[in-house]
Amino acid sequence: MIDVYSWATPNGHKVHIMLEECGLEYKVHPINIGAGDQFSEAFLKISPNNKIPAIVDPDGPDGEPISLFESGAILLYLAGKTGKFLPEDVRGKYEALQWLMFQMGGVGPMLGQAHHFRIYAPEKIEYAVNRYTNEAKRLYGVIDTQLSRHEWLAGDQYTIADIATFPWLRSWQNQGVELDEYPNLKRWFNTIAERPAVKRGVEVLASARKPLQDDKAREILFGATQYKRH
Amino acid sequence: MIDVYSWATPNGHKVHIMLEECGLEYKVHPINIGAGDQFSEAFLKISPNNKIPAIVDPDGPDGEPISLFESGAILLYLAGKTGKFLPEDVRGKYEALQWLMFQMGGVGPMLGQAHHFRIYAPEKIEYAVNRYTNEAKRLYGVIDTQLSRHEWLAGDQYTIADIATFPWLRSWQNQGVELDEYPNLKRWFNTIAERPAVKRGVEVLASARKPLQDDKAREILFGATQYKRH
Repeated sequence: MIDVYSWATPNGHKVHIMLEECGLEYKVHPINIGAGDQFSEAFLKISPNNKIPAIVDPDGPDGEPISLFESGAILLYLAGKTGKFLPEDVRGKYEALQWLMFQMGGVGPMLGQAHHFRIYAPEKIEYAVNRYTNEAKRLYGVIDTQLSRHEWLAGDQYTIADIATFPWLRSWQNQGVELDEYPNLKRWFNTIAERPAVKRGVEVLASARKPLQDDKAREILFGATQYKRH
Repeated sequence: MIDVYSWATPNGHKVHIMLEECGLEYKVHPINIGAGDQFSEAFLKISPNNKIPAIVDPDGPDGEPISLFESGAILLYLAGKTGKFLPEDVRGKYEALQWLMFQMGGVGPMLGQAHHFRIYAPEKIEYAVNRYTNEAKRLYGVIDTQLSRHEWLAGDQYTIADIATFPWLRSWQNQGVELDEYPNLKRWFNTIAERPAVKRGVEVLASARKPLQDDKAREILFGATQYKRH
């Protein structure tokens, strides 16, 4: 039984979906990032960057427990543990890894900034809104082009690159993007959304998360609290 | 002889340093991102996200050529090819991977935004400058704490997590950070900077890159050109 410290965000959903796709048993421990749970001493011990998700697998390497943070590393660990969703041949593995890295280094961080400046920031800053909306459209274009040539992001197999990318694109409306403008991406998106494991994964913690409503939650997420040294 | 399509940026330097550390032969093909080389059809074929670095290894899996983009995937590929700078034991491998992902998803993208709003953006936007300067300080704090307990980012071995992170921290002055405030990080930084392979790696293409001087280069990097569909 894998312990999952998580919240209903795109990075959390990556891991929830992967666990469901792999058929692994897991227990979810909610880390309410709007309430500041990510700054607790207990959480910091398994996630030194104060971010969700993190996991503790009591049945880790050599049968000893292992704790891991960073969604991309957790996906790779679960793929290694189960032998699923990462090609075994060397070429296929690195082709999937490059698209996983594209998600980790581009899709996630930049769409996250789009969310921030389009929705959460206390002031509307046109330059920043345009910068990240344009980058969102560019990234969707890159994905659409790739999916015009291949069924899945990394080629002809559904991999952790798809599992990592899909949760970020569910919020396309918040990113100023129209899915209809990216027909290959839309075909891929709808196919993934229909997978039973994905349907279960995106429901994890979904009812626990409420929209950010008050200044206290904003301060915790975006204010001085986040920046304190530890 | 590995072909490297690159420029003298932190993401480029990651690969230059890794090639030097591994003692691999390589040929550098400059992709001047200030001149728009990244939008050429030839480059797009090996780097569908229009970003440097990318490599082509004629001696890839099964002796056939392989082309790869995304610096994190290239580091993993070169580590796999040479058996260097990524622990072979399963636990050590995933502990290194989580810190590599921390660099790919956090350190790189967020320090890149700090550079943008502190230096390159045509207007000074206080909110964005503060946001990314604060995030830079937070990230340096996370690294400093980790390095107060371990010699290297992922534990007791120099790995691709260190190689990926170091080039981004060379620009600490542009990020509003004082290295002296992070003594463990500074110890680690200076140790890496003294490695002969690192000294050679950071010199690659360094003389070719000039400071952004004109509006044309800014438009190519940050303007409409970047956002066109392909």
